[in-house]
Amino acid sequence: MSIRTTIALDAMGGDNAPGEIVKGAVEAINERKDIKIHFFGDQDKIRKELAKYEYPADQITITHTTEEISCDESPAIAIKKKKNSSMVMGLRSVKAGDCDAFISAGSSGAVLVGGQVLVGKCRGVKRAPLAPLIPTEKGVSLLIDCGANVDARPEHLLQFAQMGSIYMEHVVGVKKPKVAIVNIGEEEAKGNALVKETYPLLKECSDINFTGSIEARDIPKGTADVIVTEAFTGNVILKLMEGLAATLIHVIKEGMMSSTRGKIGGLLAKPALKETLKAFDASEYGGAPLLGLKGLVVKIHGSSKAKETKNAIFQCLSFKEENINEKIRERFARPVKEEEVAGKQEGTGDKPRHSIKTGERIRV
Amino acid sequence: MSIRTTIALDAMGGDNAPGEIVKGAVEAINERKDIKIHFFGDQDKIRKELAKYEYPADQITITHTTEEISCDESPAIAIKKKKNSSMVMGLRSVKAGDCDAFISAGSSGAVLVGGQVLVGKCRGVKRAPLAPLIPTEKGVSLLIDCGANVDARPEHLLQFAQMGSIYMEHVVGVKKPKVAIVNIGEEEAKGNALVKETYPLLKECSDINFTGSIEARDIPKGTADVIVTEAFTGNVILKLMEGLAATLIHVIKEGMMSSTRGKIGGLLAKPALKETLKAFDASEYGGAPLLGLKGLVVKIHGSSKAKETKNAIFQCLSFKEENINEKIRERFARPVKEEEVAGKQEGTGDKPRHSIKTGERIRV
Repeated sequence: MSIRTTIALDAMGGDNAPGEIVKGAVEAINERKDIKIHFFGDQDKIRKELAKYEYPADQITITHTTEEISCDESPAIAIKKKKNSSMVMGLRSVKAGDCDAFISAGSSGAVLVGGQVLVGKCRGVKRAPLAPLIPTEKGVSLLIDCGANVDARPEHLLQFAQMGSIYMEHVVGVKKPKVAIVNIGEEEAKGNALVKETYPLLKECSDINFTGSIEARDIPKGTADVIVTEAFTGNVILKLMEGLAATLIHVIKEGMMSSTRGKIGGLLAKPALKETLKAFDASEYGGAPLLGLKGLVVKIHGSSKAKETKNAIFQCLSFKEENINEKIRERFARPVKEEEVAGKQEGTGDKPRHSIKTGERIRV
Repeated sequence: MSIRTTIALDAMGGDNAPGEIVKGAVEAINERKDIKIHFFGDQDKIRKELAKYEYPADQITITHTTEEISCDESPAIAIKKKKNSSMVMGLRSVKAGDCDAFISAGSSGAVLVGGQVLVGKCRGVKRAPLAPLIPTEKGVSLLIDCGANVDARPEHLLQFAQMGSIYMEHVVGVKKPKVAIVNIGEEEAKGNALVKETYPLLKECSDINFTGSIEARDIPKGTADVIVTEAFTGNVILKLMEGLAATLIHVIKEGMMSSTRGKIGGLLAKPALKETLKAFDASEYGGAPLLGLKGLVVKIHGSSKAKETKNAIFQCLSFKEENINEKIRERFARPVKEEEVAGKQEGTGDKPRHSIKTGERIRV
């Protein structure tokens, strides 16, 4: 018998909780025996939802919680004060080692603050970025950071590039992942103050495959594997992709329905169209992990339904198998060996610029 | 006979110059008698292109220029030093009043710097934003700023909101245009430092219809008429919309071509699809004006072809008719009347916060 992975699931977070969250969890355990779900939330509500389905009862545990954290309240205060909330209790279970991962569709801010405060960052990690996979023409790219750290500094972005590279290499299986920074032109001299300061750090960093700037128009083409940006821009990119895809699908449908010829054509083309658009549906790719923590924390969309919940649960299995946060921990905990740091000046070996430990190469 | 509008056209700027630029100009004057085109560029190259077409010769003038400004050079230095470039000569012709408007597909940076330095900002205008119309489900929205001013300050964004409102009201004809600021959540407390500082200024400003934050996913829905953001984010939004629309169209086509059923359906649906996608083609909406200058300067996409050039020329006619920069000039030159500034503290009437002159209401 394989060792079970226990997922702490925030049953109270998101627009469709607890109904769709419970449904997704039930679907997951009905498909796989090697998962245990540990719900955190109002036990009466959870039991009421569970009663609708058949499922292996030994794969479910419930911890009753009496508080909820809403999107309107200050994440920092909520995490500190609402000790009996599904969010705080769930995160603590990961910290204590009782659960392998925590998933929530609740307040992004609370997940981000709670993850960093309650689960804790790996030593050497300055900030924990939220890193979703986004669909592209070629497959997927990692967008890092996407909501955790507004007003980030250059040294944070450098670490995001390093963590993102580890993720793409080990979880997605991309060898020597191409790293690019979001910019408003391709030339090195372009950009705002943050990008101009970050660019040389990325260029000098020996353990990433930095390819330069990426303009937003090239993101959907999949020309970079790891797309580095600060959280505000990252969030705008993620949400605009989501919104524009939905709008285009809507207007294409309406456009086709406006003529008989279009209607017939649309019906015939529907299966192919559906297949294509499915590939561009971000919810197919599960949730976004908060990288660089001492445990696994995954944020799923506030509007997540059963499908997204189930996908995120399965995604946690790959994260666990690949031990991704452990790899990040190792990278940032390791001291820098002088010969590994490219472009460094003689005599600066003791104190790398911006105190970033670039560590040794992951691969040749 | 109507008075002719003279357009200074940078024949050397952009990826398809001078061929497509000349072609677009010829198409424009063949359609309308009330336009004169004043080309700035290499006269031999322009004449060679012109020789391909039939057109009313009295609607064309050429000023020979010997220098070109490329996208790789520093805009500020190029504008200062290349006095005989098509860009500098064209902009000077607007400043001198010889031409009514200047259009260029060349270096964005040079157009922005040149516009502000050579044509000059209206009194009271701190920065001149680049403001393209973007397609939405409901029609168009104005995205302001989109590339002119990275690392903008709150008082700049406030002026962008005011200028954008004047533009949408007078050029596009939207009464009481809804103004929103790009943010990563809807709540007032969300956002980076710039947004958090700008939000209260917009809220207090009495001459705009501020509706709060807009998340990027809602931009394509058209929920706001004037979308305020700093240039880096604006540029990312504009280019991502462009890139994602192109990618989706590409993958939809490929998806349809992968099966016989899809192929037939696709062929039947093609006219409807084409019509729909045309509505989402940003190039249909002409170029982006640089608002708040003493003359009209319009930037068109570097990859612009004849169609975009022609549309931008026609767009200049509406700008001239509506006298948009004059309206902006009037707004910012007017002294603030105390009762017009909402939310102001007693005794602060002499020196409005951030020295922004909100002026009187445009409409009730």
